[in-house]
Amino acid sequence: MIIVIQCKDRVGLVAAIAGLMAAEQINIVSMREYVDTVEELFFARVQVQEQEHLNGDDLKKKLQAVLPLDAQVKVNPLPEKKLAVLVTKEYHCLSDILVRNHFKTLGASVQCVVGNHAMLGDLCQRFEVPFHLVSHEGKPKEAFEAELLQTLSPYHFDFIALAKFMRILSPQFVSNYLGKIVNIHHSFLPAFIGANPYRQAFDRGVKLIGATAHFVTNDLDEGPIIAQQIIPVSHSFSALDMMRAGKEIETAVLAKALNLVFEDRVFVYKNKTVVFE
Amino acid sequence: MIIVIQCKDRVGLVAAIAGLMAAEQINIVSMREYVDTVEELFFARVQVQEQEHLNGDDLKKKLQAVLPLDAQVKVNPLPEKKLAVLVTKEYHCLSDILVRNHFKTLGASVQCVVGNHAMLGDLCQRFEVPFHLVSHEGKPKEAFEAELLQTLSPYHFDFIALAKFMRILSPQFVSNYLGKIVNIHHSFLPAFIGANPYRQAFDRGVKLIGATAHFVTNDLDEGPIIAQQIIPVSHSFSALDMMRAGKEIETAVLAKALNLVFEDRVFVYKNKTVVFE
Amino acid sequence: MIIVIQCKDRVGLVAAIAGLMAAEQINIVSMREYVDTVEELFFARVQVQEQEHLNGDDLKKKLQAVLPLDAQVKVNPLPEKKLAVLVTKEYHCLSDILVRNHFKTLGASVQCVVGNHAMLGDLCQRFEVPFHLVSHEGKPKEAFEAELLQTLSPYHFDFIALAKFMRILSPQFVSNYLGKIVNIHHSFLPAFIGANPYRQAFDRGVKLIGATAHFVTNDLDEGPIIAQQIIPVSHSFSALDMMRAGKEIETAVLAKALNLVFEDRVFVYKNKTVVFE
Amino acid sequence: MIIVIQCKDRVGLVAAIAGLMAAEQINIVSMREYVDTVEELFFARVQVQEQEHLNGDDLKKKLQAVLPLDAQVKVNPLPEKKLAVLVTKEYHCLSDILVRNHFKTLGASVQCVVGNHAMLGDLCQRFEVPFHLVSHEGKPKEAFEAELLQTLSPYHFDFIALAKFMRILSPQFVSNYLGKIVNIHHSFLPAFIGANPYRQAFDRGVKLIGATAHFVTNDLDEGPIIAQQIIPVSHSFSALDMMRAGKEIETAVLAKALNLVFEDRVFVYKNKTVVFE
Repeated sequence: MIIVIQCKDRVGLVAAIAGLMAAEQINIVSMREYVDTVEELFFARVQVQEQEHLNGDDLKKKLQAVLPLDAQVKVNPLPEKKLAVLVTKEYHCLSDILVRNHFKTLGASVQCVVGNHAMLGDLCQRFEVPFHLVSHEGKPKEAFEAELLQTLSPYHFDFIALAKFMRILSPQFVSNYLGKIVNIHHSFLPAFIGANPYRQAFDRGVKLIGATAHFVTNDLDEGPIIAQQIIPVSHSFSALDMMRAGKEIETAVLAKALNLVFEDRVFVYKNKTVVFE
Repeated sequence: MIIVIQCKDRVGLVAAIAGLMAAEQINIVSMREYVDTVEELFFARVQVQEQEHLNGDDLKKKLQAVLPLDAQVKVNPLPEKKLAVLVTKEYHCLSDILVRNHFKTLGASVQCVVGNHAMLGDLCQRFEVPFHLVSHEGKPKEAFEAELLQTLSPYHFDFIALAKFMRILSPQFVSNYLGKIVNIHHSFLPAFIGANPYRQAFDRGVKLIGATAHFVTNDLDEGPIIAQQIIPVSHSFSALDMMRAGKEIETAVLAKALNLVFEDRVFVYKNKTVVFE
Repeated sequence: MIIVIQCKDRVGLVAAIAGLMAAEQINIVSMREYVDTVEELFFARVQVQEQEHLNGDDLKKKLQAVLPLDAQVKVNPLPEKKLAVLVTKEYHCLSDILVRNHFKTLGASVQCVVGNHAMLGDLCQRFEVPFHLVSHEGKPKEAFEAELLQTLSPYHFDFIALAKFMRILSPQFVSNYLGKIVNIHHSFLPAFIGANPYRQAFDRGVKLIGATAHFVTNDLDEGPIIAQQIIPVSHSFSALDMMRAGKEIETAVLAKALNLVFEDRVFVYKNKTVVFE
Repeated sequence: MIIVIQCKDRVGLVAAIAGLMAAEQINIVSMREYVDTVEELFFARVQVQEQEHLNGDDLKKKLQAVLPLDAQVKVNPLPEKKLAVLVTKEYHCLSDILVRNHFKTLGASVQCVVGNHAMLGDLCQRFEVPFHLVSHEGKPKEAFEAELLQTLSPYHFDFIALAKFMRILSPQFVSNYLGKIVNIHHSFLPAFIGANPYRQAFDRGVKLIGATAHFVTNDLDEGPIIAQQIIPVSHSFSALDMMRAGKEIETAVLAKALNLVFEDRVFVYKNKTVVFE
């Protein structure tokens, strides 16, 4: 069982949490906490041993009773998240998610995939995951997003992965799922924001290609960063080679970020994250 | 001020530590703890704000009073360690240590350098650090090590860095400084143990060169690992090129390991380490 | 079109190759060569523009006419390799291969998968790739390998990928496919050879987990290394976490090695490789 | 001896070079070439064995005779470059350069160091390298740069390293040393251009810190990139910790870039580089 806590920092928070666990004879497997001393914010992730008679709702109430009023407490069975996935045409991130989902190592179960192109439907079908086509063509953005919302509405999910979904979502759409949308950005943020980043990287002669997984806020490429990685490239890489290298790293970074999120290791505040790896 | 605690795990340890800090109105800047659930061992590193009237010895006693009897508690002003360095002929690790020492960013102050060759004496002199030559030539190992001990004896130091010291120290010598000697190994442990590892790596056609910093126990290359890093190499690297690449990574890894040790971030048990990076 | 050449080094080899290309008005897109000056061996990979009337067999004959008698010349259309895959129970490498195969980005086409357990058959079926079960149970190794050979015999393939195939192949079996079998080793060679490497790595407290892809020779874990990578780990990783991290890196390294092999970028000699990345 | 060649690409260039070497009985140790097929540019680096009676000027003339008129040919004894260094207050890059210079592993010899602050003079003196103070204070930029030029004028050097020189040089100044100034940029280009990049990186919550070494053109942070590297960071890094990590990576990247430049492995064109590592 995972407990995550976020609140204004003050003296005695760790003592309060640990004291309660001790009093309740609950065994702490691991405990991570972090204080942003500038912002005076406290973050904790506590993993406790599953025990008979250990009820999550009870535990949450007891924790809230010993913590300040502003404390956000979540108690989650590990890991039983539900995921929706948005895609366009590229298969590399989606196939990685579907394979892990199929073999129950994703840390979440994929409820549905929605694409604005039809071509990844076949892949979903091979893994018996529902696929819906919501084309953006010939529609205003509002209509497209309304259709997206309607398509997603029958499903229950905790997070949306933008697995190379190449449409920019409006703040209105995003506001429906605040803090729940994880995007993989096709470059090393904050560099080369915008279209055709590999062309930009090639023209600039970079020696590293990167990818960034982040939560989506109002600005598609500018939300809180969850994970980043790079891969070295050289002058002999064409823009196409850079894109190919980029896809490898995109797949790896999105997989890592989703895993961190599904295991309740990521906290968001002030456009950045605390990540207990 | 840094407090490090190591003891048998039991329920309530974190609560006891944090409770004491709260009661004493001591502000915790950061707290890291780890439980090895198999070995049932508890490790904690607490950084608290320096305060007037906050006395380290007092705090230690108060902590011991609320912790189990087996708890090892250390309270250290950060970072005021003292270091002795043993070298042979290679300058790369020593010069890095001397430069950081000179500019007060090492996290420790170098008390002396002892070499079994004379050639690094000049470098030490340039930085006004005492250098002593203790040649191993024409002597049995016992005599050599006795001379080393005698040379080191006037100095006070907390740790010894083997900065490319190419003699194997006997268990007898090591037992004088148990848990205090940090070595940089000229390869990626546990691969290529022994002489001429770059030749071995070259003959084997490896694609990565690594280095390992570790505490020295009875067996020179087999103590608890503190830090490891690698650097990619290719077929076009000669054994000499591999050695050159190896020196870069040796310098970086030893610097990192010493920094971790000097900041009280490393705990040792069962031939391995807990490192709070 | 890719031309690969390997022969004893002597003055004038590059001139001979480039001169022929110039005389034939063939456009060199890229040319890589390497001389092992100790072994006096010459390796070259030349990519030339596809042209009408450019016949591979003709070109090979013309090259052999201007090169020494011992020169091995291969002219390959890029990339049209055929692959067989051997597996046991773990899905991570196989699924990566099957997905790339399905989307035609593997650089080879998978002809068949053979498993000594049945459980990956379902995955193959989802991608319409023939799967054969050849159990090793209750048979002497000779019988098992004879059955493997027979199962593979109807298929035409250039390479065999051991994608977490957990049986040690005999020198007799290997001799049928010398220089054609690529294995992914579940650790950073030459460290932790043998069973349960992640347990060994955990007990040793390593700070890096690696994987090695290599050609299989007589000794399963000791053939020429094609690619290696590492991933950092910490004390907080259980042996299981290390295995999980190891699987990520195994998948990435095998994919990279196969890609290098399929693009004719790897030369083998003296138990090591030249890799033109 | 190193020969570097850069010219418009056409059929037969490699044959011409290699043919000449063969005719002259000159042994090629290694040869690297690259064609930018879009720009139709050819780059080659040839290392030949030093031989008695092998005269660099002769060889250059003979090469020019068999190559197109536009070919730029340089023949360099390896490596005998001369270097000037500009610094401000930070010691990390300068000390690394001075140590390598002192032990003759820099690949160049440092002729002088010029600082716009006095504080690194002592370090230079310890290594017997001339240091000149040219303060920028209370002067217009033209006057400051005129003084810089005058201070540098008595020295002969092939390259200038900006080893954390914190003044922006004018295009006028740069034009005196075009293609000869190597800068280390205190961030991962093209991200976080400008002042206080570590503060920017911290505010953005990045998970990687990088550094970029590049040739200086008119725009300080935008010249052709020579080398880049990154180091992972986490939420627990303060802006100061990020700066500390950044310094490590700056030192490593500048050292690598200078080494590549001094060994004639870097070609510049179209605001990017070809680097034969």
